[in-house]
Amino acid sequence: MESVQYLGIDVGGTNVKMGIVDAQTGKISNFYSHDTANWRTSGHFVERFADAIALQLYAHKEVKKVGIGLPGMINRERTVPLEITAIPELDGVPMVETLNKRFPDVQFYLENDANAAALGEFYFADEKIDENYIFITLGTGVGGAAIINRKVFVGGDGNAMEPGHIPSRNGRVLERNIGKKELLDLANERRQAYQGNTVLAADGSISTTGLVAAAAEGDELAMQVWTEVGEMLGDGLVSLVRILDIKQILIGGGLSASYDYILPAVQKQLNYWLTPYYLKDLKLQRATLGNDAGLLGAASLCFD
Amino acid sequence: MESVQYLGIDVGGTNVKMGIVDAQTGKISNFYSHDTANWRTSGHFVERFADAIALQLYAHKEVKKVGIGLPGMINRERTVPLEITAIPELDGVPMVETLNKRFPDVQFYLENDANAAALGEFYFADEKIDENYIFITLGTGVGGAAIINRKVFVGGDGNAMEPGHIPSRNGRVLERNIGKKELLDLANERRQAYQGNTVLAADGSISTTGLVAAAAEGDELAMQVWTEVGEMLGDGLVSLVRILDIKQILIGGGLSASYDYILPAVQKQLNYWLTPYYLKDLKLQRATLGNDAGLLGAASLCFD
Repeated sequence: MESVQYLGIDVGGTNVKMGIVDAQTGKISNFYSHDTANWRTSGHFVERFADAIALQLYAHKEVKKVGIGLPGMINRERTVPLEITAIPELDGVPMVETLNKRFPDVQFYLENDANAAALGEFYFADEKIDENYIFITLGTGVGGAAIINRKVFVGGDGNAMEPGHIPSRNGRVLERNIGKKELLDLANERRQAYQGNTVLAADGSISTTGLVAAAAEGDELAMQVWTEVGEMLGDGLVSLVRILDIKQILIGGGLSASYDYILPAVQKQLNYWLTPYYLKDLKLQRATLGNDAGLLGAASLCFD
Repeated sequence: MESVQYLGIDVGGTNVKMGIVDAQTGKISNFYSHDTANWRTSGHFVERFADAIALQLYAHKEVKKVGIGLPGMINRERTVPLEITAIPELDGVPMVETLNKRFPDVQFYLENDANAAALGEFYFADEKIDENYIFITLGTGVGGAAIINRKVFVGGDGNAMEPGHIPSRNGRVLERNIGKKELLDLANERRQAYQGNTVLAADGSISTTGLVAAAAEGDELAMQVWTEVGEMLGDGLVSLVRILDIKQILIGGGLSASYDYILPAVQKQLNYWLTPYYLKDLKLQRATLGNDAGLLGAASLCFD
């Protein structure tokens, strides 16, 4: 028996990824990544977006449900984007209604992209993930989601889980301390002050890849930087655990390559702040699906 | 037509309050506060507790549902206390099952006491409270609850909302900075260092009532202390708002008498950290039900 297929769409700041997802296996076919620069300059983003959807649907007429992950805040009913920082022309656009008009036989599901990625990991990752878990993505920003009873936790008004904007050190929010740019600023700053031996460049050109590679080689300064990042992340995770009472945490995103080097400091902070009630069941893991999580999770919005 | 009545029970560390609650009006009758010292020393707390319940039920045979608020963590299914710090002999006791055996015609509902108080305010307070709101209690500790869609948010494993244990300043959790004892320690410390004029005693005997009264009189040092408390509370509230996406916040508990004096600093922190998406709908209020909230809320557990 042929498995059900859904169209999964991961809307990013500069491109939109689409693919047909086999609901059973998570296999992605007909994958396409659209560069959206022209869509934006045309002033008709939603129409160009719908055109791209049409191409997928015409090639796969059996697909009757489409899931879409958006990089920002959406309304509680999950039908209208509210604040999409990278594509502000979407704010307030009745997207589901508009798409329903063009494709009356198809159902559309909207979600925040971090929430979608969390669902993607939940349904399709190799490792076993609890029906209650916290998903954190480390990248330019720090995103997150909470899955409770296998469902996205949307909170009171629909946009729960902004862990990147929890107060952190130095009067800055967490992601302005450990987001990609900021952690490189930190590394360069620490490098300037460092008296010991290190492979890290002193000319302000440290990269995240270089920082991970150096830590893998045992470079002391690199490890100190990741420790500082891990401490700040750990403090943020403690707040999440205390507020949500969830013990499983998955770390994903572009910077999760640093996982092994931030983990000891993260664990140290968790041990410092938490009690046995939490610690005995605490489980930290690295997410495994990588860049596919968002698209797969968007497709999983179509599940019953 | 006679209104429905439920038995509401608020279990505290040293006493248990019980009363028959009119579901419509919130009127409490047959109120009794049992000192539980003897219950504890007898080693048969639950039996003595059940005896007290029996007295209420025999006097009000029409009451078929009982709601109980407990000061600590309970299991996800809401049938067994897990960690009741003040009455540890309750930990792991199958309370609902035990009470059901003794009172087979009666239904019992368990909840954490802060959660119950939040429900009490929601259903019976004079001021209008949204179906999504955050409840914070300031006292010896800092407790909290989140009501989402009119229901207690229990999180992943049933014990969500421990705002008092969010990391705060100086390597301490929030309630070890602004709990009653700690804020008096802070006041005494600031008094020692203070060079100006103040009504506050220099002998380490500052009380919370004195601190509120002094602030009401415009005492500068008292206002500075409340400002520091308000800043720390505000930072904690920001984390809650960012994680839960809830904009209404009610402040209650024994120390809520300080509300007017902590509010400016709380608001300042909220304005610093949050964005218009949150700030435009943010609503802070002081809870009004006082000590009755827990009992009324426990009774409201019996609502459909």
